[in-house]
Amino acid sequence: MMIYDVTVAIGEGVPIYEGDPPAVVRGEKALAAGDGANVSSLCFGAHTGTHVDAPNHFIEGTRRVDELDLAKLIGPCRVVEIASDVVAVEPEHLPDLSGVQRLILKTRNSEFWSTPEDGFRKDFTYITHPTARLLVNEGIQLIGIDYLSIEAPGSEGHPVHVTLLEKEIVILEGLDLREVSAGDYQLMCLPLKYVGGTGDGAPARTVLIG
Amino acid sequence: MMIYDVTVAIGEGVPIYEGDPPAVVRGEKALAAGDGANVSSLCFGAHTGTHVDAPNHFIEGTRRVDELDLAKLIGPCRVVEIASDVVAVEPEHLPDLSGVQRLILKTRNSEFWSTPEDGFRKDFTYITHPTARLLVNEGIQLIGIDYLSIEAPGSEGHPVHVTLLEKEIVILEGLDLREVSAGDYQLMCLPLKYVGGTGDGAPARTVLIG
Repeated sequence: MMIYDVTVAIGEGVPIYEGDPPAVVRGEKALAAGDGANVSSLCFGAHTGTHVDAPNHFIEGTRRVDELDLAKLIGPCRVVEIASDVVAVEPEHLPDLSGVQRLILKTRNSEFWSTPEDGFRKDFTYITHPTARLLVNEGIQLIGIDYLSIEAPGSEGHPVHVTLLEKEIVILEGLDLREVSAGDYQLMCLPLKYVGGTGDGAPARTVLIG
Repeated sequence: MMIYDVTVAIGEGVPIYEGDPPAVVRGEKALAAGDGANVSSLCFGAHTGTHVDAPNHFIEGTRRVDELDLAKLIGPCRVVEIASDVVAVEPEHLPDLSGVQRLILKTRNSEFWSTPEDGFRKDFTYITHPTARLLVNEGIQLIGIDYLSIEAPGSEGHPVHVTLLEKEIVILEGLDLREVSAGDYQLMCLPLKYVGGTGDGAPARTVLIG
């Protein structure tokens, strides 16, 4: 049994979705400066690195990230590989999803994490609205993808996010799947727990065991 | 099988260890203000709420929190209840620890989370240096406790932390065990992954399954 850490770390060099707050990590106390301990502080947007979206990200007054059902975030998961020439993932790109509760798509995006110096890229692979509707119809509880959004950039009205979130499907974005092959795993995805703000999402340490 | 979320949320009302940075959570973009999405930001110290300490918290140049062995953070765990009149947990307060890899102490501290308006309390229950040495000798991989430090406040040289961290025992602090009874569980403790600063610790979403 291997534990695969598929989490992109928060840090000052991490690509950030366009318009989101920057990430700042710094030392507040330092043994080297004569303090009693090393203590760091962090500032970042809720959608930095590997993170989950909660319904309240796009649908006002709905479930916040601290209210997500942990049972959706822990359990059997299928990783499906999408061919490297696919940018818009359509229903025909997906295999039979019978019995799948949690689905993670490994796409060409994972390789983007090899060159963080490129910054945020808009040419990422995403799922289309018909694919989002298919996932709803299949009863999927969680859908993961390996870049910072599951939806085409600039989509008017964000129909993919809204379709998934209004059915309380957890959206897991920003996975690093470079070391993971297609197959079945146990997923553990535990979002940072916080209250305040709008509870729209949270960084989520995510591992696959298999 | 129940999933117990034993994590204290980061938020502006959470008690903070004396001298550590405050926690700030705020909305950066708001659907209600005409933005395309709700997006929050967070700022906090690495030892806020439920969190792990890494060796580099007290021993300069050692393992950082993003380098912790995830195998220590996931797996069988025993929750032991300490009598409510105990402030300094000595070896004689602990049961036989044969076969225990991960140990969580439920003390009188858990009730402190019922009154966050009291702020940081210094009268918390902690483990003594002989108890830390016992945990090393027993081969414990992770020790958890239900307030913001495992060591008496003001301990000169922090011998409890140093004894545990130099053996790479993970210290898990700030658990909320009010809903959990003594017994055996599966622990999943996944610290926020970040790079930068001194990597001394991180908030860790923590669940017990049993």
